[in-house]
Amino acid sequence: MLTGSGEQVAPIVRHVHAGEGYDAVVDWGGLGHLPQYLTQLGLPPRVFLFTDSNLQKLYASTIIAKLTQAGFEPQLYVVPAGEASKSQQQLSAIYDWLLEQKAERREAIIAFGGGVVGDMVGYAAATYLRGVPLIQVPTSLLAQVDAAIGGKTGINHPQGKNLIGAFYHPRLVLADPATLLTLPPRERTEGWAEVVKYGIILDAELFALLEEHVNVLSTFTHPPVALLSQIVARCIELKVRVIEEDEREQGRRAILNYGHTIGHALENVSGYGEWLHGEAVSLGMVAAAALAQAAGMFSADEVLRQNRLLKAFGLPVVYQGAVRAQDILAKIQLDKKVVGKRVRWVMPKRIGEVVVTPMTDELVSLVVTGFFAEKRP
Amino acid sequence: MLTGSGEQVAPIVRHVHAGEGYDAVVDWGGLGHLPQYLTQLGLPPRVFLFTDSNLQKLYASTIIAKLTQAGFEPQLYVVPAGEASKSQQQLSAIYDWLLEQKAERREAIIAFGGGVVGDMVGYAAATYLRGVPLIQVPTSLLAQVDAAIGGKTGINHPQGKNLIGAFYHPRLVLADPATLLTLPPRERTEGWAEVVKYGIILDAELFALLEEHVNVLSTFTHPPVALLSQIVARCIELKVRVIEEDEREQGRRAILNYGHTIGHALENVSGYGEWLHGEAVSLGMVAAAALAQAAGMFSADEVLRQNRLLKAFGLPVVYQGAVRAQDILAKIQLDKKVVGKRVRWVMPKRIGEVVVTPMTDELVSLVVTGFFAEKRP
Ligand SMILES: NC(=O)c1ccc[n+]([C@@H]2O[C@H](COP(=O)([O-])OP(=O)(O)OC[C@H]3O[C@@H](n4cnc5c(N)ncnc54)[C@H](O)[C@@H]3O)[C@@H](O)[C@H]2O)c1
Ligand SMILES: NC(=O)c1ccc[n+]([C@@H]2O[C@H](COP(=O)([O-])OP(=O)(O)OC[C@H]3O[C@@H](n4cnc5c(N)ncnc54)[C@H](O)[C@@H]3O)[C@@H](O)[C@H]2O)c1
Repeated sequence: MLTGSGEQVAPIVRHVHAGEGYDAVVDWGGLGHLPQYLTQLGLPPRVFLFTDSNLQKLYASTIIAKLTQAGFEPQLYVVPAGEASKSQQQLSAIYDWLLEQKAERREAIIAFGGGVVGDMVGYAAATYLRGVPLIQVPTSLLAQVDAAIGGKTGINHPQGKNLIGAFYHPRLVLADPATLLTLPPRERTEGWAEVVKYGIILDAELFALLEEHVNVLSTFTHPPVALLSQIVARCIELKVRVIEEDEREQGRRAILNYGHTIGHALENVSGYGEWLHGEAVSLGMVAAAALAQAAGMFSADEVLRQNRLLKAFGLPVVYQGAVRAQDILAKIQLDKKVVGKRVRWVMPKRIGEVVVTPMTDELVSLVVTGFFAEKRP
Repeated sequence: MLTGSGEQVAPIVRHVHAGEGYDAVVDWGGLGHLPQYLTQLGLPPRVFLFTDSNLQKLYASTIIAKLTQAGFEPQLYVVPAGEASKSQQQLSAIYDWLLEQKAERREAIIAFGGGVVGDMVGYAAATYLRGVPLIQVPTSLLAQVDAAIGGKTGINHPQGKNLIGAFYHPRLVLADPATLLTLPPRERTEGWAEVVKYGIILDAELFALLEEHVNVLSTFTHPPVALLSQIVARCIELKVRVIEEDEREQGRRAILNYGHTIGHALENVSGYGEWLHGEAVSLGMVAAAALAQAAGMFSADEVLRQNRLLKAFGLPVVYQGAVRAQDILAKIQLDKKVVGKRVRWVMPKRIGEVVVTPMTDELVSLVVTGFFAEKRP
């Protein structure tokens, strides 16, 4: 299609062999064709459009106008922006609203937003009347390359994040990278952490492409239409391959957690809010790479390349905060109990290849202590 | 195995090709071998045993002793007996308890009880940590032949029954017909309505078998060990065939709703509680058969055979209550809206064969009015 910059980019379609099978589409400007996509799926005219309060201001009226023009009857529901909306209270409110609307089993729910809307609304779609058609329209970089892909939906519990949920696949994922242009800079930056992660765990070529174009990608002053579409599609392709192999996260899917063991511990110990998820993952990847290096698995050169790329994207690579290493270590130990008695570390061997392996407590302790202590101001 | 009456019955195993694939086993006395069944599945020692307050008194200490002897670490959770336990409040309480116990992703949840425990606990298992292993041990006739089979789990909403839920398959269904001996008579009787239903919709031979043995089956004074096992297994076989063809209830599964259109309307209009589900289904089948007869689809002879069998099981076949036909009709109209604009009636053509078809409003109105008016005392 014709983009704002005059560039022409064809939609990139990946058929996902999971659930009942569905397409994940990357389509610059594709939001404008949402009605056509819905029509192709043969959905009833009434659709339930969910979004958050930030996105409502930017997009809701346009989407509703387009849908209405095309003969759809969109009904809008807005959740407050932010992680706090992934709650049982919000879930109940959504059920009540759907029942008030007498929403039916064949009518679709559209989750238009970042990972919060995708997870929350996806879970409501998974469980309302035992499951209704779900359309994921991810709008944050993190949601496009990660959260909207793989069928994980869920909400938080006062005891922890994502503790209640379901595996539930959408009927369509429509990622329109043009929506990323309105993403606030910090949220855009954090999304790159997951993109770099894919490079490290699975794709040396993607990693090199990022190195080459990091300047234009990190600023977006001249939106690199084709390149951005290609990168989002590549990440989706990589994640889809992993989840097709391991739909319910019993094996290979673990590699997607590179940087997340320490990242999650950091988010948790610092109380969520200080670090965005992608920032914590960036720090987690730096620490994980240091661990792999200390174990003699990953070369100093490649550690440097990883950290340099993260930094070039504006992501944190040196921890400067008040968290104590021992709290991070304690949290990792605790998580270990919950996931079955031992931490499975995702360790890079080279850029583009990782192994999942236990590591000795001594080495972990040494590296984590160094990482969280040395650069304290 | 050797039964109380000295009869020998081998377990009957049906492998179900749904979810990740699992066995549905009918095993008289099999409750005593629950630990062996769990061991075969390779589950971790800690198991979360859920039941209701009635079953707790009768079975909990024995089950816990057996599991403990075999090296398991059972943790017991008891919900109040009754439909009211299928609530969001109960669900939250179960999540809280599981988190308090730090229940892990690989540890199993056992749902020991009737359809209430199966639906409620099954749903908790489907959604806790996005799904943990579930073992269904149905103890009511209704749950053994129906509720535990097919992967439907869920809870009620103040707006209606089973409005929130998930399709989630267990790792094992273990139906021990010996547990039916402690079932209160009214609950046992209602279960036969679903068994007769299978005969009408799919299996003339089963129907004839029931006709032949209805006396011994309806009283249980000398538990007909082999026969009862065989009948439960046959019903499971029939339901499994249907759901294997139509896992998510988009087509053929509709035939299982024979007698349920009017049955549900009756339960709803009379406010749940006056009629047990199976009793309402019995009346619903009588009315549905009358409708099929009025349409010239089903012979008077076969209508008589159906109603005679239901009556012989002690099920109601003549409506004697205060509900008004127009309320039943209104409720059917309302449901029609919710399920997609027209009622699909399950109409018998002969015993063992049904079709799913719309019926004219006039005929429905005529038959329903006759059925709910004529026998009022
Ligand atoms: N399901 C999964 O597999 C998965 C994977 C990773 C993360 N997640 C979840 O995703 C969530 C984080 O996702 P997120 O980072 O997208 O958070 P988010 O949904 O809160 O979005 C971040 C912020 O950006 C705003 N925003 C999003 N798109 C925008 C756009 N195009 N223009 C302007 N503003 C926009 C949002 O309103 C919000 O304020 C977490 O809850 C996490 O648990 C889920
Ligand atoms: N998931 C499905 O596909 C499906 C299908 C049909 C019905 N259902 C649901 O099943 C529920 C009804 O099931 P139900 O009739 O088993 O109700 P139930 O679970 O309430 O059991 C009925 C009563 O019998 C008692 N009981 C059960 N087994 C016993 C035993 N062996 N000994 C002594 N007492 C026993 C229970 O304590 C309860 O008081 C409803 O909530 C209905 O929605 C679900």
